[in-house]
Amino acid sequence: MDKKQFALGLDYGTGSVRALIVDIVSGEEVASAVAPYASGVDGVVVDPGQPLLARQNPADWLAGLRDSVRTAIAEATKNGFTPDRLAGIGIDTTGSTPVPVDEQGNPLSFQDRFRENPAAMAWLWKDHTSFAEAEEISTRARESNEPYLTKCGGVYSSEWFWAKALHFCRTEPDLADAAGGWVELADYIPGVLVGQTRPEKIVRSLCAAGHKGLWHRQWGGWPSRSFLTSLHPQLARWCDGMSEPQTSDRPAGFLSPEWSESLGLLPNTPVATGGFDAHFGAVGAGIRPGCLVKIIGTSTCDIMVAPLDRPLGDIPGLCGIVPGSVLPDMYGLEAGQSAVGDIFNWFVKNFSPAGQGGGHAELMQQAARLKPGQSGLVALDWNNGNRTILTDPLLSGLMLGTTLHTTAAEYYRALIEATAFGALTIINQFERYGVAVAEVLNCGGIAEKNPLLMQIYADVCNRPMRVTRSSQTCALGAAIFGAVAGKAYSNVADAQRAMAAPLITAAEPCPAAVPVYARLYRIYKKMHDAFGCPNAPMASLMKELIAIREAPVPD
Amino acid sequence: MDKKQFALGLDYGTGSVRALIVDIVSGEEVASAVAPYASGVDGVVVDPGQPLLARQNPADWLAGLRDSVRTAIAEATKNGFTPDRLAGIGIDTTGSTPVPVDEQGNPLSFQDRFRENPAAMAWLWKDHTSFAEAEEISTRARESNEPYLTKCGGVYSSEWFWAKALHFCRTEPDLADAAGGWVELADYIPGVLVGQTRPEKIVRSLCAAGHKGLWHRQWGGWPSRSFLTSLHPQLARWCDGMSEPQTSDRPAGFLSPEWSESLGLLPNTPVATGGFDAHFGAVGAGIRPGCLVKIIGTSTCDIMVAPLDRPLGDIPGLCGIVPGSVLPDMYGLEAGQSAVGDIFNWFVKNFSPAGQGGGHAELMQQAARLKPGQSGLVALDWNNGNRTILTDPLLSGLMLGTTLHTTAAEYYRALIEATAFGALTIINQFERYGVAVAEVLNCGGIAEKNPLLMQIYADVCNRPMRVTRSSQTCALGAAIFGAVAGKAYSNVADAQRAMAAPLITAAEPCPAAVPVYARLYRIYKKMHDAFGCPNAPMASLMKELIAIREAPVPD
Repeated sequence: MDKKQFALGLDYGTGSVRALIVDIVSGEEVASAVAPYASGVDGVVVDPGQPLLARQNPADWLAGLRDSVRTAIAEATKNGFTPDRLAGIGIDTTGSTPVPVDEQGNPLSFQDRFRENPAAMAWLWKDHTSFAEAEEISTRARESNEPYLTKCGGVYSSEWFWAKALHFCRTEPDLADAAGGWVELADYIPGVLVGQTRPEKIVRSLCAAGHKGLWHRQWGGWPSRSFLTSLHPQLARWCDGMSEPQTSDRPAGFLSPEWSESLGLLPNTPVATGGFDAHFGAVGAGIRPGCLVKIIGTSTCDIMVAPLDRPLGDIPGLCGIVPGSVLPDMYGLEAGQSAVGDIFNWFVKNFSPAGQGGGHAELMQQAARLKPGQSGLVALDWNNGNRTILTDPLLSGLMLGTTLHTTAAEYYRALIEATAFGALTIINQFERYGVAVAEVLNCGGIAEKNPLLMQIYADVCNRPMRVTRSSQTCALGAAIFGAVAGKAYSNVADAQRAMAAPLITAAEPCPAAVPVYARLYRIYKKMHDAFGCPNAPMASLMKELIAIREAPVPD
Repeated sequence: MDKKQFALGLDYGTGSVRALIVDIVSGEEVASAVAPYASGVDGVVVDPGQPLLARQNPADWLAGLRDSVRTAIAEATKNGFTPDRLAGIGIDTTGSTPVPVDEQGNPLSFQDRFRENPAAMAWLWKDHTSFAEAEEISTRARESNEPYLTKCGGVYSSEWFWAKALHFCRTEPDLADAAGGWVELADYIPGVLVGQTRPEKIVRSLCAAGHKGLWHRQWGGWPSRSFLTSLHPQLARWCDGMSEPQTSDRPAGFLSPEWSESLGLLPNTPVATGGFDAHFGAVGAGIRPGCLVKIIGTSTCDIMVAPLDRPLGDIPGLCGIVPGSVLPDMYGLEAGQSAVGDIFNWFVKNFSPAGQGGGHAELMQQAARLKPGQSGLVALDWNNGNRTILTDPLLSGLMLGTTLHTTAAEYYRALIEATAFGALTIINQFERYGVAVAEVLNCGGIAEKNPLLMQIYADVCNRPMRVTRSSQTCALGAAIFGAVAGKAYSNVADAQRAMAAPLITAAEPCPAAVPVYARLYRIYKKMHDAFGCPNAPMASLMKELIAIREAPVPD
């Protein structure tokens, strides 16, 4: 490489798309631009009558693509960027965010007759209208002894590809008849850029297919025709045309003349196969074996990798075990906590309103003055259910140990500690099944801005906590895949060594705190098992509370 | 009775003494006066270095006696009161509030050399400095197979007579040597009025002795000499001179010339034997068999009576089973909830500060709009431990079922419901041991001012909730005993019929709510037993949290 080379990473978030241009040798982020989506509320099309509905207008994706890339290029040009120096383009997106498309692969909402119909738009990851269909898929898989759930924690989610497709077919038969296929956003954008979006030809991402689409080599790829037909014949027809997915280091193709002109780039620039934001973020953060990447936001996504050449069985409770999904030559392992930042926000909003000396900053400051164990509290962090390892969205939160002296800061700290105990439970599950966790890399604003949270996590998990210096590891991961797809590097690990975000150690375990938290964790774990494990002594109570809540009381 | 007659009730509270003059035929409260105590903080002598210490200056009692009675008489005189029309005087006090006295029965703090020494003052009911001695007494009783704990819930309390005496002897040997006896406030005031306070001659109240002093006819009265000697020889010496206690319908004596002059009353006016405020309050509220009186304040005191002529075994967990303590011909039964109003105050103070739209009134209003079960929450009301039926001060609070949508009003309502479940648990224990609870009479400001709380209690307990119209049922009960001691009535029941406070029904059970709360109570009870009963699955967790809290963490 005798002159500067760059890669472009595109990160499709929930409310905007970010374009990041990176120097592939130094890793310097030379330009970045964000384009918010125009439709709906902060880019999300909602329906007050259906609180579970969350859709996205695909037209926003294309407008945002043009805007963000052109702005970033203009900026990068000041730093030596020229189109011929662009090694490749990578794309990550939210997911599962599928969209119904016509035979040409254009979203149905591009047709005038469907333009205002949210069902013809993309079904955003956090759309939960398909909860009944998700349960149906889980039940059907269990009853027919299909192995499909073994790689996704034993439960299919309402956020995922086939549940949404099934709900779409059931509730919108006319649209379903008009649709030629069902395509992930992570596949659609690379398809657009390379000029091939036809559902039977578009390149499918292994990351998306493996984690959300029940694709696995063990059962010959996609779910069987008979299984899909038993759910809805349309699903089987769509699946018939779906190609074998591929890893994100491989190109989906090369930039089309149309889009090269539109973006101001050269035709035939390599475009990598797409993938999901959390997985690409883990790559951008420098994931490697032994290292858990936690992307901490309102919830967490926890990513690990393990070499393909060593045996790895199913790990109960993990929401994804997909060979090649994060790094091409590794198992990609996904876990998560249903609520982290959301729990702290819930507490501040309802129990310690900011502006009354009770916002996050004030509580954090007071909580930092407390010693481990001093509050006498232990909480279960299940205010939004439990994703890993119990995979039970109907669990709820619990606070144990309040006295007449319990303060808001103590409660707040106990909630932070509870999320740390939740994190340790995931780590222990990885290790129990042979995946050692030597260090933890944390991404996301909460990790960067909260030294106390990182210290508690270090003390509870008894491991150093590192954070990335980049606040855009997802787009950086996309750029890394762009560089590899463009053959600037022969493999992802080499590209990571040059380009991945620098890490700093945010907290080391404090020897005095570790044994205290070990004692507290035993209490957490006892509560976790008693309330969370099926058939345990208290297991029915949270469900019974929901049943009571949902039984209407006459006035 | 051919002309108007009156009775005087004196109610010695924590911060003041109230004098109430009642027309003994109509029950009309013709005059009332309150005299706050001058010493300490709101009448309580405290020590910032000893948070468990709470003492009271006996000089305040005598000053308050003069002030309150003279003011009340001045007012009553406008309503037909003359000293010759006073049938008798009754006295109730906080308790156990013992005071060390000299050979003459004068508090040691009346001596110049001890005037500033809190140990020479009265040891107020809420003084908990004697916690270690209380445990020692419980252990000693168990190890020596003495039956003493069978009538007080299986545990001797740090609030009680002998624990305080033992701590006094251990920590203040010089004062203990100077003391001629250890006297309850409930005995001291009648003794003062009748001019006989010498420890070996003062009339002792059966109510005080039975509930706090381990006196019971079953074991021949006071605890055995050998038992007391094994604790401290001084206790045995003091006990040697202590007379057999008597019920409060009997006179302690007749007003002395000195005090009749000081108060402006006639010499030889009958003075009833004293008793405790909650028990007299129950009498003032009209207690009778089948009726539970709940005095609801920061905590509750729950009083019942049962006929002496029917067999009644020990009732596990009750803090007192004393023949004659409330009504002379009945068992007096005492239970209690460690925190009720205190829990609501804790929540508002820490989690929903008043003035931000989050005070009691606002929360109550919002909580009233919720339906039973709607919050999906169930709490354990143990923020200050559990008095009845678990008799475990080291239990702590628990909240089950929080989600990201849980509001402060839902939390607040769940706390109210938890105290109602605690109340029902006590009712069920009474009934399980043969004491039927047909109705509940509620006294205290919280009961009077909170229709929502009363409705929830009615729905949870599936019984009508009545409240008294008088806000001074304790002083009223004292006046009733004054009238009976003065032979204006031949028994307490007759006096109650004329004088007890009018009742109103505050809430009837709502048929739609009762079954919902029955379901919720099953959850409460399962948690109650799992966390609160010894050897239950989760029983160690709250204790372990305290052990962790109390193990110092190095900096």
